[in-house]
Amino acid sequence: MAKRTERQWVERLRERFASTAEGIALGIGDDAAILAACAQPWVVSVDASVEGVHFERRFVGLRDVGYRSFQAAASDLAAMGAEPVAALSALILPAGLPPAELDELTLGQRDASLECRCPLVGGNIARGKELSVTTTVLGSVQRPLSRAGARPGQQLWLVGRVGLAAAGLAALRLPRARAEASAFARCVQAWRRPRALLEQGRELARVATAAIDISDGLATDAQQLARASGVRLVVSRTRLLAALDPALLAGSRALRRSALRFALHGGEDYALLATGPSALRPPWAQAIGWVTSGQGVLLELGGGTVPIAGGYDHLARS
Amino acid sequence: MAKRTERQWVERLRERFASTAEGIALGIGDDAAILAACAQPWVVSVDASVEGVHFERRFVGLRDVGYRSFQAAASDLAAMGAEPVAALSALILPAGLPPAELDELTLGQRDASLECRCPLVGGNIARGKELSVTTTVLGSVQRPLSRAGARPGQQLWLVGRVGLAAAGLAALRLPRARAEASAFARCVQAWRRPRALLEQGRELARVATAAIDISDGLATDAQQLARASGVRLVVSRTRLLAALDPALLAGSRALRRSALRFALHGGEDYALLATGPSALRPPWAQAIGWVTSGQGVLLELGGGTVPIAGGYDHLARS
Repeated sequence: MAKRTERQWVERLRERFASTAEGIALGIGDDAAILAACAQPWVVSVDASVEGVHFERRFVGLRDVGYRSFQAAASDLAAMGAEPVAALSALILPAGLPPAELDELTLGQRDASLECRCPLVGGNIARGKELSVTTTVLGSVQRPLSRAGARPGQQLWLVGRVGLAAAGLAALRLPRARAEASAFARCVQAWRRPRALLEQGRELARVATAAIDISDGLATDAQQLARASGVRLVVSRTRLLAALDPALLAGSRALRRSALRFALHGGEDYALLATGPSALRPPWAQAIGWVTSGQGVLLELGGGTVPIAGGYDHLARS
Repeated sequence: MAKRTERQWVERLRERFASTAEGIALGIGDDAAILAACAQPWVVSVDASVEGVHFERRFVGLRDVGYRSFQAAASDLAAMGAEPVAALSALILPAGLPPAELDELTLGQRDASLECRCPLVGGNIARGKELSVTTTVLGSVQRPLSRAGARPGQQLWLVGRVGLAAAGLAALRLPRARAEASAFARCVQAWRRPRALLEQGRELARVATAAIDISDGLATDAQQLARASGVRLVVSRTRLLAALDPALLAGSRALRRSALRFALHGGEDYALLATGPSALRPPWAQAIGWVTSGQGVLLELGGGTVPIAGGYDHLARS
């Protein structure tokens, strides 16, 4: 396959991401993109997906890499309750990457961009030794949700599934024949094709007092929310178990691993964790615990509580 | 030196970049940053600086890496005539990077952030094999300048210096004793500490018809402007030579290389190239040529013209 120059790539991406979305005055191809003025506050975030750390090409195709890196970034908008407006993509590409692979990567980004209704309006392409996709997302919302706002007496809500993606990743690391077992299918899909819970986030912005997206595991992200709000969060083991997806239970059994552990410590499902008054809980938000005064996160076992050790650290991983 | 956890880093960065700027409702530390609504259109861009491609640690300290990566991104705002509002920084850090080095990197980002009046409001830290800094910038402007707008009969303006940074980089690649010769001092400084021409960009937005920042070299970026506007640009060799900085002439002589070649093909000074009616040329914009109908970029030699071959390609470099 012929090598394409950078200009040809920019042309191709301009066609691929041509957007007629309202609010985009100028998309890919100039020094910067131009977005129409907006009467609401803006919410902006950036997230990176790095080969060898966030994914390995031997068990994920680049279309999935493009898709999930985009959804992971959009998930930060969901956690703030924001409506997506636009995204930018900065790619670092190793010299040997075939054009067809780059094509797959951008197709995955397009899939996610369409699903999230978040047009990709610009970006950057650079050479490097290791493949990475860094996605900036911009959204807007009248009253953004932050992590600081949980108050004692409120409920702890889980929106979406937890643990499936981590179980899926564990399955993908098995020898291929085992990884393809049907018991893992939904877990693997959860890891490959996570979805930012944007609609739910927008609903939560009207009723919740704080929210965070679960990217590093429920335990770790609950710690972050507790710290930012200056409260203690108590997770009910019984309620959390009741909230687990049957596919996680089946996958964990086949892996001979603990479903609860996947649920507490597995990230990358991009579920939302929120707090709010019980009377305002939306039906699709599962009450898995409550907020008290104090600090940290406890697991309530029915008869007593134990601290949940969180502490996923991006810098510790190498 | 003790290793810091990611949370400690986020805390440190939150202190370092604590901003009281108007328009920043929430900075570093949550799922996303929040910017106040703005009555003007937004301009957004992203730029990456990758070790081994854009810099090598053997001849640049990380404080300069942080500084110049930020200015390079801000330069895209200058080219659009936009006022900076905020920036996000996504860092990919190799496992062995000492905390003191990361500290230097963020100090360089802070230097540039203060100079550009562009608060850093959020970001991401990830592990990777190779150091990179990806900077997203957001700005606003009532009437953004694009690359498309040059019309035959207008002048071609150069704002700022060209070629110095490339000569500086060539000097840095010499054996250290030679690189430190005084003939190179201003060239090396131009490469290490480029400045986005934000004020000039804002002025140009009122009088120019098109603009681009020169990151890949005058020849290459002029091609881009000509293509986007559907015109031909003619650069006068005499006028361009007259516009060159004496430090470039001295540095080129000491390197035994052509100053004109550095000026045409060296990038990373982050000068601005613009077009506009001659009557509106600001005194600090140097008229180095003109716009005609046709396509491409020509060098006028006094008696004839030759095409300038541009074509810096980020994907061809590896």
